[in-house]
This record gives sequence, C-alpha cells and structure tokens, in this order.
Amino acid sequence: MLIIDKLIEKSKKLRAPVCVGLDPTVDLLPDHIISANGGNVPAAFLEFNINIIDAVYDIVPAVKPQIAFYEQYGAEGFEVYTKTVAYAKSRGLIVIADVKRGDIGSTATAYAEGRLAADGADFATVNPYLGKDSLKPFIDVCKRDNKGIFVLVATSNPGGADLQKLELVNGLKLYEHVGNMVSEIGGDLMGNYGYSSVCAVVGATKPEEAINLRRQLPSVFFLIPGYGAQGGTAADVAVCFDAQGAGGIVNSSRGIIGAWKKTDKPEDYAQAARAAAVAMVKDLREYIGGL
Amino acid sequence: MLIIDKLIEKSKKLRAPVCVGLDPTVDLLPDHIISANGGNVPAAFLEFNINIIDAVYDIVPAVKPQIAFYEQYGAEGFEVYTKTVAYAKSRGLIVIADVKRGDIGSTATAYAEGRLAADGADFATVNPYLGKDSLKPFIDVCKRDNKGIFVLVATSNPGGADLQKLELVNGLKLYEHVGNMVSEIGGDLMGNYGYSSVCAVVGATKPEEAINLRRQLPSVFFLIPGYGAQGGTAADVAVCFDAQGAGGIVNSSRGIIGAWKKTDKPEDYAQAARAAAVAMVKDLREYIGGL
Repeated sequence: MLIIDKLIEKSKKLRAPVCVGLDPTVDLLPDHIISANGGNVPAAFLEFNINIIDAVYDIVPAVKPQIAFYEQYGAEGFEVYTKTVAYAKSRGLIVIADVKRGDIGSTATAYAEGRLAADGADFATVNPYLGKDSLKPFIDVCKRDNKGIFVLVATSNPGGADLQKLELVNGLKLYEHVGNMVSEIGGDLMGNYGYSSVCAVVGATKPEEAINLRRQLPSVFFLIPGYGAQGGTAADVAVCFDAQGAGGIVNSSRGIIGAWKKTDKPEDYAQAARAAAVAMVKDLREYIGGL
Repeated sequence: MLIIDKLIEKSKKLRAPVCVGLDPTVDLLPDHIISANGGNVPAAFLEFNINIIDAVYDIVPAVKPQIAFYEQYGAEGFEVYTKTVAYAKSRGLIVIADVKRGDIGSTATAYAEGRLAADGADFATVNPYLGKDSLKPFIDVCKRDNKGIFVLVATSNPGGADLQKLELVNGLKLYEHVGNMVSEIGGDLMGNYGYSSVCAVVGATKPEEAINLRRQLPSVFFLIPGYGAQGGTAADVAVCFDAQGAGGIVNSSRGIIGAWKKTDKPEDYAQAARAAAVAMVKDLREYIGGL
C-alpha cells in the first residue's frame, strides 16, 4: 500500500487528520528536563520527544520533527533528530521529516537517501525553487522505498507573498503554477483514495487560496501548517478536505508540545500535550465532514 | 572589515576568484583512503578534505562544503562536516556553507545560528521561496557576527527554468525579481568595494542572463557554480565580474577534488587537485580583467 494511503487510512481510523510538530526549543521545554539531563539540551530534547510521542501515538497518525531545531546543536542534535524519527516509527507513527531541502543532481540524491531512506522517515518536505529536476531524485527514492514528499506550494508566513503570490503572464500566481507542477509529477504515485504520495504544503492562514487550490489540485494531498499558535482555525483548514474527510493533514507544533505552558504543572507536560491534541482533534471533527 | 570585503581582498591578493567545492562522495574518493579508514566513509571524507584543503589553501580564498554529502551519513557525517568547516577556517580559508536552507521565524533562526554562528562558517547559501521574512533571521546573524549569505537567484540546472524563468506581469522573470529582492535587503551590509555581504547564486550556464544580472544588480556579489564539470567556461563566467576583477567567485567541485581520476595516480589526489586549481586560476585570469 502506498504511503499516502497508509496516512489517509490511519487518519480515517483515528478520525484525526492531525500531525504533531516535534519542534523542541529550550523555551518550550520544562526546566526540570534540562536539569535532569545535566544541561545537555539535545539529550533533553530526546527525553521530551519520547514522552510527547508516548502521550499522543495512539490518537494521531503522524509527527513532524523540524530538523532545524536539532541541527542547531550540531552532530549531537542531528543524532537526536534521527533517534526521534526512529522512536516515532517504533511507536507506529508516520513521520514527516520537515527538512525543506532543495538542490540538484547528486546533491538532491544525497538528501533523499539521507533524510528518507537512511533515517526511515515516510515523507520529507522539499523546496521547489530549483525546479522539477531537483524533485526527481526524491521521487525516485519515493518510488523505490514507498515514501512521499510535501513540496512547498503556499506558506503561511507574511513573506510567503514575496514570491509565491507574484502574478505570472499566464494568469496564474506562482504558487498556483507550483501546485500544477506538483500535480503533474505525482501521477506515478497515485493511491487508492485519489491522492498521490507527491503532496503539497499549503498554509492555513488564507482560506480563499486554500479553497481555490483544493479545487485546482484534486489529487494533491495537503500538509497544512498554521493551525493554533500561528492563527489558523478549524474552519480555515476544513476547506482543504474533501467530502470523505480526506485530502490533508493539519499540523500543530507549539500548540501541542507547549500546551503545558498554559498550566501550572510543567511536570505534566506530556498529559498537557495529549489534552491539547484531543482538543484539536475534537475541534477539527466539528468542521471537517466525513471523518 | 565586512566579510564580503575580506573575500574580495583575498581573491584580489591571490588573483584567484575561486572557490573549491568540498563535495565528497564514495565515487570521488580514491579507494585507498576508504580502505585506510576501515571502510568508514565519513572518516575517509575528513582525511580527504584535510589533504585537499592543505593542497589549495594558499592559492584560493574559499572553500564550499556541500552539506548534503555529509548529512547523508547521519550524525557521524554531520560531525565531519563541522570538522571540515573548522579545519578550513584554521587554514585561513573563507568558508561558504552550501546548505540552501529556507524556512521561517524561529526555524530560520535555528538554521542561521547553527550553520553560520555555531559552525563558524562565513557565508551560507539560502533559498528565497519563502520570502524576505525567511531571510531576515540570516541577515540578523550576518549583522551580529559579520557573516554573509548567498541567496539562490538563478541556478545552472535545466529545471532551474521551471520556476526561475517564469515571466511575471511586471515584465521581469522570476529570477530577476528575486535578484532585485536580494539587492534591496543587502543595503545594511554594504562593503567598501560596492558589494554587500548579501549575495546571490548565479549559475554560469547562460551567459546572456549573467550579463543582464550583472548590469541589473551592481551591488550584488555572485557565487557562480557550473564552471568545469558542469560545462561553464571562463568566458561564460567572466561576464559576472567588474572592471576591477571583483563581483564574483567561481566554484568548482568535481573538476578539482576529482582531478585525480584523469591521472593514473590516485595516491597523488591532493597534488592533482592543486594542479587543477592552478589551471582553473590561470584560465580565469585570461578572461577576467583587472585581477
């Protein structure tokens, strides 16, 4: 079964098209974890991640570690990143490697072999600026090892408009053109639910764009950041889904892993994360039909 | 002195606007190095890099390790990457971290802190697809720590055209628009030679585009890939330079570190690399005026 079908079936079974972003920072970690690890931040990240994963693995289908937060600590952080991927996989979670790599030829192959094949992640996020031939090495690994990619199409930051919303002479905006490109190259990896393993990142802060993209790209599955801490609501993200409740997965990072900060019990951070994930799932179920 | 001025002065002093790409692969390494390291590929990469650096540090101003080839080997590869950066710095070389990162907010900050500040590299390559606010965290670190960035503008791969050469309704092509954006955000980091530490990657395979970009962006310094193994000639790249021989640096990776493959002495790979670098410098001097 193609990885996109696994993701869709797991989301349907749990009635939870939700991804938990594992984006640890010193600020998002309770002090006691850092102290317990002798001030070793990467080691504290791993303990934190393991407990977050244990708290949510049975209610959400996927996690998305953002590699930047690990890489910041050099090789030691990188190792914690790969251990986080492996631990999430061992708990049956689908792992989306948020790496946003983009390069050409043998360089792109090295990224795909490293972040998908070697790490064992199921999906990776990739950047389209270098064009179709920069995506091909990723797609080759996807075909060989049953993986998927999420290509950046429209992002939720204000500066996303600087390039993505530029109008082209063919009448499209750049992000719409990129969306078409993603749709076009995904044909060989089409799953049983009408979606390809070649997917798109579509930010949640501009619902009218999401509505149009959903119509324009019926076979492209969306990873939707921006829910919660970044301002997107369940109503905003619901437009990315089809009538069967498929078509996308909504990510929340700080809103879940940092939920303990709104309590007076930092030691119960994992329970707070689970409660926040449960609340998010409940919220989405009210707006997304067919789940 | 701003890092861009250091790079320009070092290039002028050596009469060699040349960067050696440290892009090791198993195929580019003589077998005996891998054997001598007991088959440990990352360890072999480090030995290879140290010897290449020792062979070229006095004739070129800069090296550019491509992190993908190291990352492919996980944390151990990542450590060899950071050790390569540190060793190159210890030999007085300017280091361009070819990481092509691009993300937003705290994620972009984590990349900038990691790959520029923590590693000690002087420049990093970055991807513009997420817009100006994705570049700002890098520029903040550049200002604080006297670093620079090379923003992808026009790349030399065929697929570069898929996005970069799209025509916008304002009459520009996308890469020209991105070039203007790079020029605009570089104003605070302007050096004594009229170039900013906020620079651009401009591929060498389409000289007419390079000629136009050079005119359009007089204060933007270019990193020029594509020389040698990728098909760019000295005449092609010369158009990126000003009358004083400044304005850009030309990268060669395989053409230098893989030069030993055209000899029958793999054990003399470092000397072959030096000879290839000398030949490249000589070639460029014939076409670039003012050096």
